[in-house]
Amino acid sequence: MEINNAKFPFAFFLCCTFCLWVALSLVAAQEDPELQQCKHQCRVQQQVSERQRGECEHKCEDYYREHHGPVVDPEKQLQQCRKQCELLQSGRQREQCHRECQEKYDQQQLEEGGEEEEENNPYVFRDQHFAFLRTNQGEVKILEMFNQRSRLLRGLKNYRFICLEANPQTFVVPTHYDAEIVGFVGSGQGTITMVCQGKRRSFRIRAGDIVRIPAGITLHLINSHKNQKLRIAYFLLPVGIPGRFEPFHGAAGENPQSFYRAFSPKLLSSAFKVKVLLFVNWVFSFIYVSDMEKKQVEEGTLERVFQQQTKGHFIKASGEQIQALSGGQHGEAAGIWPFTSGESKRPVFNLLNKEPSADAEDFRQLKDMDIEVSYANITQEGMMGPFFNSRSTMVAAVVEGEGYLEMVCPHLSGEKQQQQGASPIYQKVSSSLRRGTLFVVPTGHPIAIVAGTSRNLEIVCFGINAENNRREALAGKGNVVNGLEKEAKELAFALPARVVDKVFRKQKEELFFPGPQLQNSNTIIIIRAMPMHDQRKIDDEAGL
Amino acid sequence: MEINNAKFPFAFFLCCTFCLWVALSLVAAQEDPELQQCKHQCRVQQQVSERQRGECEHKCEDYYREHHGPVVDPEKQLQQCRKQCELLQSGRQREQCHRECQEKYDQQQLEEGGEEEEENNPYVFRDQHFAFLRTNQGEVKILEMFNQRSRLLRGLKNYRFICLEANPQTFVVPTHYDAEIVGFVGSGQGTITMVCQGKRRSFRIRAGDIVRIPAGITLHLINSHKNQKLRIAYFLLPVGIPGRFEPFHGAAGENPQSFYRAFSPKLLSSAFKVKVLLFVNWVFSFIYVSDMEKKQVEEGTLERVFQQQTKGHFIKASGEQIQALSGGQHGEAAGIWPFTSGESKRPVFNLLNKEPSADAEDFRQLKDMDIEVSYANITQEGMMGPFFNSRSTMVAAVVEGEGYLEMVCPHLSGEKQQQQGASPIYQKVSSSLRRGTLFVVPTGHPIAIVAGTSRNLEIVCFGINAENNRREALAGKGNVVNGLEKEAKELAFALPARVVDKVFRKQKEELFFPGPQLQNSNTIIIIRAMPMHDQRKIDDEAGL
Amino acid sequence: MEINNAKFPFAFFLCCTFCLWVALSLVAAQEDPELQQCKHQCRVQQQVSERQRGECEHKCEDYYREHHGPVVDPEKQLQQCRKQCELLQSGRQREQCHRECQEKYDQQQLEEGGEEEEENNPYVFRDQHFAFLRTNQGEVKILEMFNQRSRLLRGLKNYRFICLEANPQTFVVPTHYDAEIVGFVGSGQGTITMVCQGKRRSFRIRAGDIVRIPAGITLHLINSHKNQKLRIAYFLLPVGIPGRFEPFHGAAGENPQSFYRAFSPKLLSSAFKVKVLLFVNWVFSFIYVSDMEKKQVEEGTLERVFQQQTKGHFIKASGEQIQALSGGQHGEAAGIWPFTSGESKRPVFNLLNKEPSADAEDFRQLKDMDIEVSYANITQEGMMGPFFNSRSTMVAAVVEGEGYLEMVCPHLSGEKQQQQGASPIYQKVSSSLRRGTLFVVPTGHPIAIVAGTSRNLEIVCFGINAENNRREALAGKGNVVNGLEKEAKELAFALPARVVDKVFRKQKEELFFPGPQLQNSNTIIIIRAMPMHDQRKIDDEAGL
Repeated sequence: MEINNAKFPFAFFLCCTFCLWVALSLVAAQEDPELQQCKHQCRVQQQVSERQRGECEHKCEDYYREHHGPVVDPEKQLQQCRKQCELLQSGRQREQCHRECQEKYDQQQLEEGGEEEEENNPYVFRDQHFAFLRTNQGEVKILEMFNQRSRLLRGLKNYRFICLEANPQTFVVPTHYDAEIVGFVGSGQGTITMVCQGKRRSFRIRAGDIVRIPAGITLHLINSHKNQKLRIAYFLLPVGIPGRFEPFHGAAGENPQSFYRAFSPKLLSSAFKVKVLLFVNWVFSFIYVSDMEKKQVEEGTLERVFQQQTKGHFIKASGEQIQALSGGQHGEAAGIWPFTSGESKRPVFNLLNKEPSADAEDFRQLKDMDIEVSYANITQEGMMGPFFNSRSTMVAAVVEGEGYLEMVCPHLSGEKQQQQGASPIYQKVSSSLRRGTLFVVPTGHPIAIVAGTSRNLEIVCFGINAENNRREALAGKGNVVNGLEKEAKELAFALPARVVDKVFRKQKEELFFPGPQLQNSNTIIIIRAMPMHDQRKIDDEAGL
Repeated sequence: MEINNAKFPFAFFLCCTFCLWVALSLVAAQEDPELQQCKHQCRVQQQVSERQRGECEHKCEDYYREHHGPVVDPEKQLQQCRKQCELLQSGRQREQCHRECQEKYDQQQLEEGGEEEEENNPYVFRDQHFAFLRTNQGEVKILEMFNQRSRLLRGLKNYRFICLEANPQTFVVPTHYDAEIVGFVGSGQGTITMVCQGKRRSFRIRAGDIVRIPAGITLHLINSHKNQKLRIAYFLLPVGIPGRFEPFHGAAGENPQSFYRAFSPKLLSSAFKVKVLLFVNWVFSFIYVSDMEKKQVEEGTLERVFQQQTKGHFIKASGEQIQALSGGQHGEAAGIWPFTSGESKRPVFNLLNKEPSADAEDFRQLKDMDIEVSYANITQEGMMGPFFNSRSTMVAAVVEGEGYLEMVCPHLSGEKQQQQGASPIYQKVSSSLRRGTLFVVPTGHPIAIVAGTSRNLEIVCFGINAENNRREALAGKGNVVNGLEKEAKELAFALPARVVDKVFRKQKEELFFPGPQLQNSNTIIIIRAMPMHDQRKIDDEAGL
Repeated sequence: MEINNAKFPFAFFLCCTFCLWVALSLVAAQEDPELQQCKHQCRVQQQVSERQRGECEHKCEDYYREHHGPVVDPEKQLQQCRKQCELLQSGRQREQCHRECQEKYDQQQLEEGGEEEEENNPYVFRDQHFAFLRTNQGEVKILEMFNQRSRLLRGLKNYRFICLEANPQTFVVPTHYDAEIVGFVGSGQGTITMVCQGKRRSFRIRAGDIVRIPAGITLHLINSHKNQKLRIAYFLLPVGIPGRFEPFHGAAGENPQSFYRAFSPKLLSSAFKVKVLLFVNWVFSFIYVSDMEKKQVEEGTLERVFQQQTKGHFIKASGEQIQALSGGQHGEAAGIWPFTSGESKRPVFNLLNKEPSADAEDFRQLKDMDIEVSYANITQEGMMGPFFNSRSTMVAAVVEGEGYLEMVCPHLSGEKQQQQGASPIYQKVSSSLRRGTLFVVPTGHPIAIVAGTSRNLEIVCFGINAENNRREALAGKGNVVNGLEKEAKELAFALPARVVDKVFRKQKEELFFPGPQLQNSNTIIIIRAMPMHDQRKIDDEAGL
C-alpha cells in the first residue's frame, strides 16, 4: 500500500506527534481501545481541517486493519458472538441472534476470500476456481487454467493442476493422460501401478511421496488404507495441446466410458478377432439376446466387455483385491521396465525423509521436466521468509494447517508504470491460507509465509524453470543486503552502514523465523514506552 | 457417437428384441435389404409412439451408414449408374443420364470430404486446405497454418507443411528458407544439393528418403528421372517468425524474383564491384542499349544478371545438365562440410530400407529438432492399431493407396466438459484416406488406420516431441489391458478377468492386423446364426 | 520496390531508349540537372499518352530519390539554405528565411524517420519507441515490447531491451530483475557488483564488455569515470511472465521505493527481530519522536532504514566511495561464488579485444541463453554485407556513427501472397542509422549496412537462436552463388555461367567492402560512357 508523503501538511504531522505520545502512553492496550484512541486523537486536533480529520481516522482504520487483520480470528469472534446470544432469554431471540452471528461470520469469510483476492490478487486460488467431479468413492478437482485468472500468470498457461481424493479401500480406474505429470501424495497410503507397452510396475506410496508419471503411461491407484483418504495432487504439463489435457480410460465400460466404445464395432471386431452382433449398438446388445446367445456374448464379444462398468472413476475394492493390488515395489514386474534403465530411477521419492525443502537434485526424474518440488513445514506461529526465487515460478498448495502470506508484486501496476517511464510500485498481495489453498509465487517476487497459532503450516511447491534456481534470503542469515559493501549500503539507504546493519544483522536464523504472532504476544513491541498519564495530558489539551 | 441409454424406454427395447430376431434370421443378407428390414421392424412395432418409430428408423440409418459407410465404394456406384445409362436408347438421354451420375458422384464426394470433416473433424486436411503455386514444370502446395483450422491444433502452430512436385528432368531453383526442414521423398529420384558458406555438397535421393535441411542453407533439386515426377514433402519449423516462413531466391531473375533486385543498384554495384547504368531501373535496362553497350551489360553488369530468368521455380533441364548436376554423394564437395563433422552425419536416410516404422534413433540429424519420421505400409485390407502415441503428436500424409481412419478424441467436447466437472466424452473422428490426404494424430489419442481393398496404404508420419515417445498397443500383442493385474481388470471392467481376457488375448498379432473389410467378407460374423422363418414369425406377430 | 514489367507498352520502352541516350550523353552531370534531364525526356516523347508521360516523370523522381536519397545530406542542404539567407539585406527577412530553412529541415527529418519507417518498416526503433525514466544523475530507457510494433516480430515477444546511462561518478542502486540478462557496455568504465545468497563479486567493466547477469541476482553499478557517461544496454529474457520484467529494489528507501516497505511492519519486525512503532506508518515515523526515541529509531527500527533514500536510481557518489566500490576483479569476494565453479566462467567478456564480430563460442556464459553477441565496426564510407543469418534473429543497436541499412523482406507482403499461392515479393526495407537506433534483422533476411562518410559505424548485435547460426555472404568471398555448380548457375540465371561469374567473382573482399558513397564519388560509374552530342541529337529529334 503506497502512501504519498507529500499530501500531508505540517499541521497533520503535528497532530501525529500528539497522537504518538498518546499511543505510547498505553501499556499493553487492548485492540479495540487502540483503534478508539487513534481515532480520538484525530478528532481532538485543532490545527487540522475536517477533511484531514477524516483522513486521519481513515488511516487509523487502515493501519489497524492491516496490523491486526490476520490476528483477529473470525472463528473466535463467532464464538464470542454466540456466547452473547446465550445471555438472551427468549429462545426465538437466541435463535435469531445465532443466525445473525453466523451471517456476519459468513459475510466476513466471503469478503476476505472474495473481494481482496479476486480483484487485487490473481495469485491465490480456492475451491471456487476448481471444477469438481464427485462420486461416492472419491472426487477429482480440476483447477481452471492459470492464465484464465490473469494475464500475469501466462507463464504458467501450459501447466495444469488437479487433485484426486480416493476414499479408503478404493480403486482408481486405469487412465492415461496426454500430459507429463508430477504427483504429490498429500495424505494416505496405497499403491500406484503403471503399465507401459504391456509391462507393469507397482510402487507403494504414502504421504510425502512425489511420483513422476510419464505422458501416455496407463496408471491406476489403490488406496489401501482402512479409514484414511488418499489425496494426490497432479501438476501436469500437457504435451499435445498446450494447456489442455484429458484422461483416457480404456479398461472401463459405460461409466467411466471406455474410449474403445468410440471405435466402430466392425473395426474392433477385426482388431480383437472377436465377434460383434448385427444391429447391436452399444446401447442395445445386452438386452435382446437369447440365453444361448447371452453366454456367447459374455464369453467373447465386445458388447459384454465394454458396458458392464457403471461405477465411475473410483471403485470400492474388497480386502482381497486390495491385498493383491498392493504388491508395490516387489510386485510383479513383467519384463524390462522401459524408462528405468538405471537402478536409481525409481519414479517415487519421499520428500518428508529430507530436509524441509528438498529439490530436484535428489530426484533425477524431474530433471527432464525442469521442475522442482519442495515441501515447507513451518512451525506453528513461525514464519518462512521474506525470500525470493531467482528463476522458478512456484505453484504452492497448502497440505495442512493455516496461516497467511504476504507477497510483493510490482507487476500488478507495472505495465502501465513502465510504459510511462515511472518506477515500479510494489503492491502488497496478502491472503489467508487454509488446507487446499493454492497460490502462485512468480520469479523474483519477495514473499513471506506465516503459520497460524494452532498448528504447523505444511506447503508443497511445484516450481517451473527449476534449473539454477536459488532461494535468496531477504532477512536473517545470508540475506542479500548483508552481501553489499559498506559504501553500497550507505549510498543505497542514504544512512550510515552501521545503522543499516542494526536492522539487517540482528536476525541470526536462516529462512525460518519465529513469526509475528508469537513475537506480538511475547514482546509487545508496539506499545513499548509510554506512560498512561501522557495520554490524559493530551486529552486535557484537546479540551476533552 | 455417444448414445444415451436413459432415453430409450422399455417398449423400445422390446422392439429391438424383435428387431434382432428378424435381423439374425437373414443369412448373408444383401446391404439394401438389411436396411429395409431394420426399418420395417421399426414400423411394425405397436407398443411404441410415432416419435419412437422415427427414432428407430433413424437409428437404422445411422447404424447402416456407420457400419457400411466406408465399404460402399462411390466409384463402383458411379460405374453401375453409368451402366444403366448405357441401356437408354436416345443419345441425348444417355448424355443426360451420365451427367446426372457424375453430379451425384461429385455431390457424394463433396459431402464425404466436406461436411463431416470440416465441422466435426479438424484433424484431416485435403486439397482445399492447400495453396497451390503451379508452373509448367511443377507445383508447390503450401498447407494453411495448422491452428487456422482449430484451436485444438495450436500445439502445431509453429510447424508448417509443404509439398513440391517437379516434372521429369527438371531443375528446382536454388532457395533458402527461414525454417528448419525435414523432407521426405514420396516418389521419383534425383539429387539434392546444399550450399553453405560457399561450399557445396550433393546427395542422390530416391523414394523413401528423409532429408534434413538446416535453416538458411541454400538448396536446389534435380529430378533426374526420365518420366517419373519427383515428389518431396517438407515439414518445416520456422525459426524467425513463429509459424511463418518464406523461400528466398538469390540465384534467380525476374521470375522467380531474385531478392538481390530489392537492394538499391548503387549498393549492389559497390558490393559486387561492378557497373550499373544510370536511370536503368530493373525494368528498362535490357532494351535500350546499343550493341556495344549490350555486350558490356551482358558481361559485367547487374541488370543483365538479375533479369534474364523468367521461367519460375521449376526449370526444364537438358540431359547434359541433368548429368552434370546428378553427381550425388560422390559429386564435387569443395572443402570441409560445415555440419558434417562425424562420418555418419549424412543428412539423407532411407526409411524403406528399414522396418515399416523406423524412428529417429536411426537418424541422428533429427534429434536436434526433436522430430521423428516413420513410415507405415499397411497391407491391402489390413489395419494398423488401435494404438496411441505416448508423447508425440503426428502429422501423417498418405503417400499411396486409400483407406480410412478412426480416431478417438475427448478434446472435441472436452473443455466444456472439464469446466463443468464432467467426464470426457470420447468422440469418434473418422475420415476416408486417399493419396495426398494429411491428418493429425494428437498425443495419447487412440487411432486405427484401415487399408482399402485394392492396394496397400502407405503413410509417412512426422512426429513432434519425439523424445521418449512410445507407441502403445490397444489390441493384439502387448496391449495395455493385458498388462493389468487380474484384480485391476475385474475392478475396471466389472467382469471376471477370464471374460476380459477372451477379448483382449485372442488377437496374437502385433500392431498390424487383417482389417475389417477382409474379416467382413470372409467370416460374415454379423449375421451368423438365425434362420429365415424366424423373421416371418415376427412379421406375423406384428400383424403384417 | 516492385515494378511490373507487363504494364509498360512498347511505346514507352522506345521513349526510355531515347531517354537513355540522353542520359548517357551527360558526363559527370550534377544531380539536379540529371533529374531535369530525365523528366525532360519524358515530356518530349510523342508516341506516348499523357498518362504515360506522368508515369515516366514519376519514375524519374522515384529513381532519383532511391538513387540519391542517402547521399543528399539534409544538413548540407540546411547550410546552403542558410547561406542564401545571409544574402538577404533586411534583418527581419533573414530571420524569416532562417526560420523557413529550419522548418524545411525539420520537416524532412520527420518524414525520413517517420513515414517510411513507421508505416513500411516495423524493424527499426527510435527514441519514440522507448519509455524514459530520467533523474539528475542518469536515465533508464525501456523499449516497448517488440511485438507491440508488428506481428512479424512475435519471435522476439519474450525478449526486452533497455538502456542505462549513468552520469560520471555515479552509483546505480542495487536491483534484481525477474529476467536473464546480457548486458553490453557501450561507453564509459566502472564496476559491476553482483550479490547472490549473501556472497558478492565485483568486476571492472569498460566499453565493449558484455556481461552475463543471471536472473534474480542483485547487482549494482559504479560509473567510476570522472567525466564520461557509463552507457550499458541490457538484452533481457524475462523468466517469470513472458515478455514482462520489473526491477526489484531492496536496499532503497522512499525513492527508489524499497520493496521491503510493502510488507506489513509487524511481519518485518519479526523477520528482522527489530522494533516497529505503534501507529507508525511509513509516512509518519521520522517526525514525531522525541529525541530519545529518535535515537532508538535511528539505531534499530525499520522506519528509519527504509525511508531515508529519496534520490532515485542514480546517486552521486564521493571519490572515496567510488574508490572503495571500484575494487573490481580483485575486489573482496566473500566466500565461494555460486555460479562460477570453473575458472573461465567470468561473467564479463570484452568484444573489442576480438575480431569485428566475435560470437558466443568465446563466452560460454551465453550458451545457456542460446544468445550470441557480436560487434561490427564498419569503416567510414564502407559497408557490411549483403549477407544473411541462417538461424539467428538479430537485435542490433548503433553504438556510434551513422549510416543506413537496406534489408530484403518477403514477409511484409508474404502471408497474403502465400495464401494465394503466389511467389513472395521481396520488399526493400531501408532506414538511416544514428547512435541509439535499434533494428531487427530476422532470420534468413538479406541485409547490407553502409557506414556514413564522417566516421565509423559501430553496431552491437544480440542474436537469439544462436546455436549453429552461420553468416552467409551474398557478395564477395565465399558468397552463396559462387558455391553453385556451373550448370546450376546457368539454369538459375538463364545465362552462361561465365556471365554470372563476371558479377559474382569480381569482389574479392569478405563481408566488409568499400561502400557505395565511396565508390559513387570516386568512380562515378553511373554516367560513365556517353558523349554530350548524343544528347543534343535526341533533343533535336524531339523537336526542342
